Amino acid sequence: MRILLVGAGGVGSAVVPIAARRDFFDHIVVADYDRARAEAVAGGQAAEQIRKQTASGPRDPRFSAIGLDASDQAAVEAALREHRCDVLVNAVDPRFDMPLFRAALNAGAHYLDMAMSLSRPHPSRPYELPGVKLGDEQFAMSAAWEAKGLLALVGMGVEPGLADVFARYAADHLFESIDEIGIRDGANLVVRGEDGQEAFAPTFSIWTTIEECLNPPVIWEDGGWRTTEPFSEPEVFDFPEGIGPVECVNVEHEEVLLIPRWVKARKVTFKYGLGDEFIDVLRTLHKLGLDSTEPVRVRGLEVSPRDVVAASLPDPATLGERMRGKTCAGTWIKGVGKDGAPREVYLYHVVDNAWSMREYGAQAVVWQTAVHPVVALELLARGAWKGQGVLGPEAFEPEPFLALLNEYGSPWGMRES
Amino acid sequence: MRILLVGAGGVGSAVVPIAARRDFFDHIVVADYDRARAEAVAGGQAAEQIRKQTASGPRDPRFSAIGLDASDQAAVEAALREHRCDVLVNAVDPRFDMPLFRAALNAGAHYLDMAMSLSRPHPSRPYELPGVKLGDEQFAMSAAWEAKGLLALVGMGVEPGLADVFARYAADHLFESIDEIGIRDGANLVVRGEDGQEAFAPTFSIWTTIEECLNPPVIWEDGGWRTTEPFSEPEVFDFPEGIGPVECVNVEHEEVLLIPRWVKARKVTFKYGLGDEFIDVLRTLHKLGLDSTEPVRVRGLEVSPRDVVAASLPDPATLGERMRGKTCAGTWIKGVGKDGAPREVYLYHVVDNAWSMREYGAQAVVWQTAVHPVVALELLARGAWKGQGVLGPEAFEPEPFLALLNEYGSPWGMRES
Repeated sequence: MRILLVGAGGVGSAVVPIAARRDFFDHIVVADYDRARAEAVAGGQAAEQIRKQTASGPRDPRFSAIGLDASDQAAVEAALREHRCDVLVNAVDPRFDMPLFRAALNAGAHYLDMAMSLSRPHPSRPYELPGVKLGDEQFAMSAAWEAKGLLALVGMGVEPGLADVFARYAADHLFESIDEIGIRDGANLVVRGEDGQEAFAPTFSIWTTIEECLNPPVIWEDGGWRTTEPFSEPEVFDFPEGIGPVECVNVEHEEVLLIPRWVKARKVTFKYGLGDEFIDVLRTLHKLGLDSTEPVRVRGLEVSPRDVVAASLPDPATLGERMRGKTCAGTWIKGVGKDGAPREVYLYHVVDNAWSMREYGAQAVVWQTAVHPVVALELLARGAWKGQGVLGPEAFEPEPFLALLNEYGSPWGMRES
Repeated sequence: MRILLVGAGGVGSAVVPIAARRDFFDHIVVADYDRARAEAVAGGQAAEQIRKQTASGPRDPRFSAIGLDASDQAAVEAALREHRCDVLVNAVDPRFDMPLFRAALNAGAHYLDMAMSLSRPHPSRPYELPGVKLGDEQFAMSAAWEAKGLLALVGMGVEPGLADVFARYAADHLFESIDEIGIRDGANLVVRGEDGQEAFAPTFSIWTTIEECLNPPVIWEDGGWRTTEPFSEPEVFDFPEGIGPVECVNVEHEEVLLIPRWVKARKVTFKYGLGDEFIDVLRTLHKLGLDSTEPVRVRGLEVSPRDVVAASLPDPATLGERMRGKTCAGTWIKGVGKDGAPREVYLYHVVDNAWSMREYGAQAVVWQTAVHPVVALELLARGAWKGQGVLGPEAFEPEPFLALLNEYGSPWGMRES
């Protein structure tokens, strides 16, 4: 398997040291708008641990780097062909999903992303009805992928991704019928500034966080999707492994669109433990128009305010040394168990930043997003997962995925209530 | 008198219709980075009322327009010479103070601004001691202005400006000795969006507001200047003419640096009624680094985050039709009256947005800033005010200023406590 990894940001830079320990692939071409960043990541330089490991040995020849503009579909197609890649892995902001998705289809490559094509709110009733939903543009092209015998595996990170695998696992093995599937994401991460004081520094792509948090959250209920107001229905969820109770609110997320396509449940929700400070920041950015992706004119130049926000904040990939704590992603399922009795479980995956930094030189949040697509690629390379068309993680058998995740040294857990 | 008015933003666009009703000057050249904006302002197009008045008549030939980059000192000198201007009026962000100030000196023109050269915090104890203070760079060059027989009248807007005139008036006429002079600025202005809902829209240059509110506030006390934390010492001040109580906090402002140079007082402070929402916005911008004037790199372009914030918000000059309410600037003096008894007065100036829009087509806050430099220019043109070197408004006799302000149709008031 030859892979074109597009994006050498936080997630891309964590994919490299994870894949470097595995032998399922032949080559990974790391591509980025900033070629120097792609070179550094391909050389393991962005991953502290890998740098130490390879300092005395040769660079892993299975990684190379190129400069590439993810918005330039023709250039991406050319790169896939030139480097004879079987798979394109999309590790850039979801605004580039469609050019990358189309490039892979045209070039005859499989495709994997960790999000889905973007939504557009309902024009007149944005907080009641969905407009264009996450993934709609991709699912509309499923027949073209099937016709070419190609797979587009969408939403294959941690959330969406592992969370969807958990939902399918619960449906197959733990429940007779499911009432509600609630994805719940929370952390007790703290970032300290240069001065040692607690600092404000988002641990994941702020571009993506703004997108998902300020769009109308979507809910699946009684056979249909509806939307609500941003940050609605706050609820305190008790996260495992010492993280403890965190207030979570509704956020637009891919699982709510993916799970009901393959798993039967009366209700599917996604809630994120953003915290009051982060919600206030997002509300303020929106109030000032700084969440906008439409360019504004500044002294003769055209720039998108959201890009400027991202450029003003520290790169999440560089925060690991100043971070402490754990992050948890998981799927909370309520329904009737195989024995006919009411059952409630939370299937989860916790990453301790100290561990991911020590083992991989990658901070916990980006490492947790990066490990699952690598596991999925390995399953595809080995033939354990097979498929054609546009599919979500819950379209595949969950057992091999969960077994291989354990083999990667990052076990998942289950809490029974 | 021939005037080069640099800046056709909110204040510049309000200076034109105010000056247009007076006959003390021969010509005003309106200069802006955006020549089209300068043309519109010189033609009265940004001022609704003036447009209506001149729609049937000829354009006032005393106004013309040029394109000019305020940061290009040589270009400003050339413009002063080419247009034979006696005075440069600085109506741009204070970051351009020094090139404009030097250009006027070199070209042999008087200079008037509504702020002063920028401060720089103390390198190690920013919230205790001043570093480079507002106006320090300008006052350091006073001898050069005196040597050329030229006047640089700095801080000649409303605050600083009228507030300083009030301080001198109180010292000359109302008090035997002064304990504290507190500038207090508050408003009950509301801006509505296109949808009629209350909207967040700063009514004055956000660039300047960020600068003054996030720098360490400065206080004059017992013969020296000290600084404090931003937004410190909140206090509820009761503003006159129906505005009512508003919470005010310490903000860095020129009056605190100017007044003690000419008026004897134990303490001088400046507090601004920002409101919780605005303070939260400013704190958030600071937390995200979006207050920074240092360029960041965004997809190959270099832009300053603060410029992007300004470009993302509506132009304050365009808000008048959607604004309601009044703004108040004033000087609160406590001390011993001429009769030897304790005395406390608040000298103030209130502008109702409905009035300034009807009379001048300019919103209240920019109109209130613009009227005072025009009054000062008229006093200088008529010889009622004379001076050489770098001087603040309180260096001049206050009576002619206050009398002429009444003649401009915008009377000041006094509240005795």
